[in-house]
Amino acid sequence: MVSDMLEVKIKADRLQGVVKAMSAILSESIFEFDKDGMVSKAVDESNACMVEIEIPKEVFSEYNLEDTKIGIGLDRFVDIIGMAEKDDDITLYLDEDTHKLDILVGKMSYTLSLLDPTSIRPSPNLPTMELPSSSKISGSALKRMVKAALMVNDVFTLGVSDKTFYMEASGDLDDVRLELLADDTTFIRDADASSAYSLDYFAYIIKGIGSTEHVIINIGTDLPIIMEFSPYENCFATYVLAPRIRGES
Amino acid sequence: MVSDMLEVKIKADRLQGVVKAMSAILSESIFEFDKDGMVSKAVDESNACMVEIEIPKEVFSEYNLEDTKIGIGLDRFVDIIGMAEKDDDITLYLDEDTHKLDILVGKMSYTLSLLDPTSIRPSPNLPTMELPSSSKISGSALKRMVKAALMVNDVFTLGVSDKTFYMEASGDLDDVRLELLADDTTFIRDADASSAYSLDYFAYIIKGIGSTEHVIINIGTDLPIIMEFSPYENCFATYVLAPRIRGES
Amino acid sequence: MVSDMLEVKIKADRLQGVVKAMSAILSESIFEFDKDGMVSKAVDESNACMVEIEIPKEVFSEYNLEDTKIGIGLDRFVDIIGMAEKDDDITLYLDEDTHKLDILVGKMSYTLSLLDPTSIRPSPNLPTMELPSSSKISGSALKRMVKAALMVNDVFTLGVSDKTFYMEASGDLDDVRLELLADDTTFIRDADASSAYSLDYFAYIIKGIGSTEHVIINIGTDLPIIMEFSPYENCFATYVLAPRIRGES
Repeated sequence: MVSDMLEVKIKADRLQGVVKAMSAILSESIFEFDKDGMVSKAVDESNACMVEIEIPKEVFSEYNLEDTKIGIGLDRFVDIIGMAEKDDDITLYLDEDTHKLDILVGKMSYTLSLLDPTSIRPSPNLPTMELPSSSKISGSALKRMVKAALMVNDVFTLGVSDKTFYMEASGDLDDVRLELLADDTTFIRDADASSAYSLDYFAYIIKGIGSTEHVIINIGTDLPIIMEFSPYENCFATYVLAPRIRGES
Repeated sequence: MVSDMLEVKIKADRLQGVVKAMSAILSESIFEFDKDGMVSKAVDESNACMVEIEIPKEVFSEYNLEDTKIGIGLDRFVDIIGMAEKDDDITLYLDEDTHKLDILVGKMSYTLSLLDPTSIRPSPNLPTMELPSSSKISGSALKRMVKAALMVNDVFTLGVSDKTFYMEASGDLDDVRLELLADDTTFIRDADASSAYSLDYFAYIIKGIGSTEHVIINIGTDLPIIMEFSPYENCFATYVLAPRIRGES
Repeated sequence: MVSDMLEVKIKADRLQGVVKAMSAILSESIFEFDKDGMVSKAVDESNACMVEIEIPKEVFSEYNLEDTKIGIGLDRFVDIIGMAEKDDDITLYLDEDTHKLDILVGKMSYTLSLLDPTSIRPSPNLPTMELPSSSKISGSALKRMVKAALMVNDVFTLGVSDKTFYMEASGDLDDVRLELLADDTTFIRDADASSAYSLDYFAYIIKGIGSTEHVIINIGTDLPIIMEFSPYENCFATYVLAPRIRGES
């Protein structure tokens, strides 16, 4: 049995979409390939924001490997796979001698140096808690809430009150509140809840969400937010962000 | 009778278009509401450029108020009303207790702190002089003249000579002159005239004019320019700009 | 016979397209007009990159002149002719008294100060060598190669090996290689060859090539590259760029 054997092929738009969900927020991550598919998990330097992405085996068109873990610098990786057209195939091949990743995009081959996985902040497991409030809202509604909140402060509150999903932000002078229409919110669990979060992170998070249609937002009261969405059919991305203590500014 | 009572509703695109005509040039202004509609007048710090905008009562869909004067910071106000889609209704409601302005855009409510009207530079009345030359030209022709003049200097001359509207600018090395075609100019009063103006102001003025189709330009010889246009049907905007003394550079 | 007599007229898009091929790379040049047409040749300060553009007499709609040489600053010239719409006529008229160039674009007249031709770096003749490899490739393929190479270094190698046109670049950590498909390459002379070039120049060269469909690329081994294309029907542009010594970084 050869360790670290990896040769997989996938349509460019699938890989681009999923990797972007992570690269918008973090600059490096460990990618783990096993018999079920590819998973990458990482946390930012301040331990405030965790990201996990997942591409199941079925989304790849070729998938030959032994269990493998590789560390990838995301900025460069995004540039390389971004050279591909939407319908191009991208092949990732791990060279066992050099331990570099050969990335084939059409007739282009790029040899990418990998990062030592032990040098990358260990990826914690996602919290498994079930938060009291879980709502499915549109990606565009989330962007609109972030944009409105940024007009008055760098912290905002997301909450559910009496089956209405809302955002509130208060600045030194002005206040803003935005409620979603009942039609725009599907509740999975509809308990009241409210927590404050840093808008600095959300500015990146809405880039990671991109044009994704729906996001499931799980919140509690003064608890982390867990956001789940599907950057490509059958693929998953999850963001977990610690709450801000109210009164912090 | 309650003083300072104000609750008005208007389609977003109307308010956005008219306010933009002012905000491109000034950063704060007093808005006066009375039985005829809304008027805002202000002058820039150097007293060189005056702006007046007007939305008659009929352009609002709801209009309940006593005569009211409020001071508004324009940058923030533009951001807030810019959150609305073209067809959204925007409601402005003056909270009599807090003396803040509640701005409702769909399900978003924004509470805007107002400026003390007495802290804002008093708005003079527009000059009522009838200038000897009055021409209706296209907004795009005005932009073209400004762009061409900026290639050689930061002052240009607008003039009418023998029923031809022209622009001239002279730099240290190069000169440029642009004449409008007779087809592109409708004269209301066609006397000869010419005055020089600062292009610094015109760079903002052409933003304020935006995609407006026509602008009426009134000039004399070494006199202020008065520019009138309609940022939305039945609404008005006027710019008055002092001339530069020729020979100034 | 009057010396320095010049009055020519040409459609805006033709003049814009050809001048852009030069202005993307150089900031001033001598334009020579004679009975056959207009030619401009110049070399950059470091003598590494030569550009020649040519518009034959037939591409002009009016062409009245004695042999004339004028020095033109390209940035300003591009701005002025850029004021024209695609279908406008541009007239160039040399004022014999002031020795300035009157540029007429519709009803705009711009008087451009000329540069003293003796102050401009003398334009060498293009090398006449026939390089061993000559390939016609698409402009977009060239852009793609430059973009991929810039990800790893500021020097790249262009080569032909066994009738395959390729690009290679090696950085401190990563390597990239891109081969063109046989369908995308038409060989005029198909000898093997390879030379390294500075990507700094190519970043400008691909702007000069713009949306041109095809470029003929002539290379040898450690020899200059000669690139030829047609920025407008019947017009020509040529870039010659010195090679980088391999091992240089």
